[in-house]
Amino acid sequence: MPRYKLTIEYDGRPFVGWQRQSNGLSIQQCLEEAVQGFAGEAVTVHGAGRTDAGVHATGQVAHIDLGRPFPADTVRDAINAHLRPVPVAVLRAVPASDTFEARFSAVERRYRYRIVNRRAPLTVDRGLAWHVRYPLDVAAMAGAAAALEGRHDFTSFRAKECQAKSPVKTLDELDVRPAGAEIVVTARARSFLHHQVRTMVGTLVEIGRGRRPPDAIPAILAARDRAAAGPTCPPDGLTLTRVGYPEELA
Amino acid sequence: MPRYKLTIEYDGRPFVGWQRQSNGLSIQQCLEEAVQGFAGEAVTVHGAGRTDAGVHATGQVAHIDLGRPFPADTVRDAINAHLRPVPVAVLRAVPASDTFEARFSAVERRYRYRIVNRRAPLTVDRGLAWHVRYPLDVAAMAGAAAALEGRHDFTSFRAKECQAKSPVKTLDELDVRPAGAEIVVTARARSFLHHQVRTMVGTLVEIGRGRRPPDAIPAILAARDRAAAGPTCPPDGLTLTRVGYPEELA
Repeated sequence: MPRYKLTIEYDGRPFVGWQRQSNGLSIQQCLEEAVQGFAGEAVTVHGAGRTDAGVHATGQVAHIDLGRPFPADTVRDAINAHLRPVPVAVLRAVPASDTFEARFSAVERRYRYRIVNRRAPLTVDRGLAWHVRYPLDVAAMAGAAAALEGRHDFTSFRAKECQAKSPVKTLDELDVRPAGAEIVVTARARSFLHHQVRTMVGTLVEIGRGRRPPDAIPAILAARDRAAAGPTCPPDGLTLTRVGYPEELA
Repeated sequence: MPRYKLTIEYDGRPFVGWQRQSNGLSIQQCLEEAVQGFAGEAVTVHGAGRTDAGVHATGQVAHIDLGRPFPADTVRDAINAHLRPVPVAVLRAVPASDTFEARFSAVERRYRYRIVNRRAPLTVDRGLAWHVRYPLDVAAMAGAAAALEGRHDFTSFRAKECQAKSPVKTLDELDVRPAGAEIVVTARARSFLHHQVRTMVGTLVEIGRGRRPPDAIPAILAARDRAAAGPTCPPDGLTLTRVGYPEELA
């Protein structure tokens, strides 16, 4: 069966999250209905990352198997035609080998988290960034972020419901960068635990506002206890920007 | 009476435009009601630029006169408290002299226009950018934009309803720059005619898609006829980003 790799963008606001759920509309369901609409067959859309409700994507990746071959651009345009008017779009569709699995072949996931740090409420960025009213010390946040990079037991930054076998992960990058009134956090790893990015950002913001010392991270990691870290920040600012694959599959 | 200069941000989507109108909610009306809500008096909010329906701002400027003085940060926070939940926010409030007039003292206005040039529909950027599906030649657009810079009779780029006394304006900058799948146009002038930016962008896109030659601009300007230029593009991609004042008033 011909397999296709899809690169997908969505506005997470109206959805219960990536994954099909009985309690509301998911991105996966919209895509599966759109594929069925054009290909005339029930198809599972296998995503690389199960983003939560309200989390956005500009570079989610999924794969589908179709009963018969179509030109890749036709797959992209036909799914998009059936997706309207929901805010989900296939940016690219390319033929993929049988060994390509969107989730299990991935070697890198990148997330961006946008914080708008000012007194005034959000307008155009409502739902697309986290509004933090109290002043943040970006240098303290950047220093704390560096202490999270590397291979650690991230139990303290893991949601209770997390289904990963091991809490040990390698965080390749956690960058904190000011951009005007905005603070942009970039997180990069092979994979993340459930809520890991949002709990890391929530903790960095506690450090940035002076509620915890800049050198708090090592003790939080060592505690191996979710209660040791800061709160899970809102989904609004989070976007899955890229999923990377080995060169032979990309 | 104490005067304040307000720097204002808004999402233009739900509004009929900046200016008060009988047929729907304007940004000006929201601000005037918010000022009245906190100061207890009817106040006119004088804006620097009358943005159209659907046009956004990150740097609109207005002035207000209040019956009695308040700390400037109180003015900002109190207006914002009364603005919720509409997507309008006062970013800054500062005391201003009696000679400061948001509209008439302005010496520079800057607009940004965002085009997303790709096949796939928009998701997070819906209403915040113009989606152009056919491929655009950015270099041809940039060359044509340069021919619009300078002092010209812009009659060909002026809406019929335009109330400006003279169609002669000096366009200080019209920059066209690719940014990934996006094309960002920056326009800067002391003032613009009604729909001038949107008609310039609409014309540049016709050149970018090859419907008009790259050197079409001089003949369009010389025609002094709105019918000679391209269509007025949608408001979605347009944002008023800055209004500049002489240093002694800024």
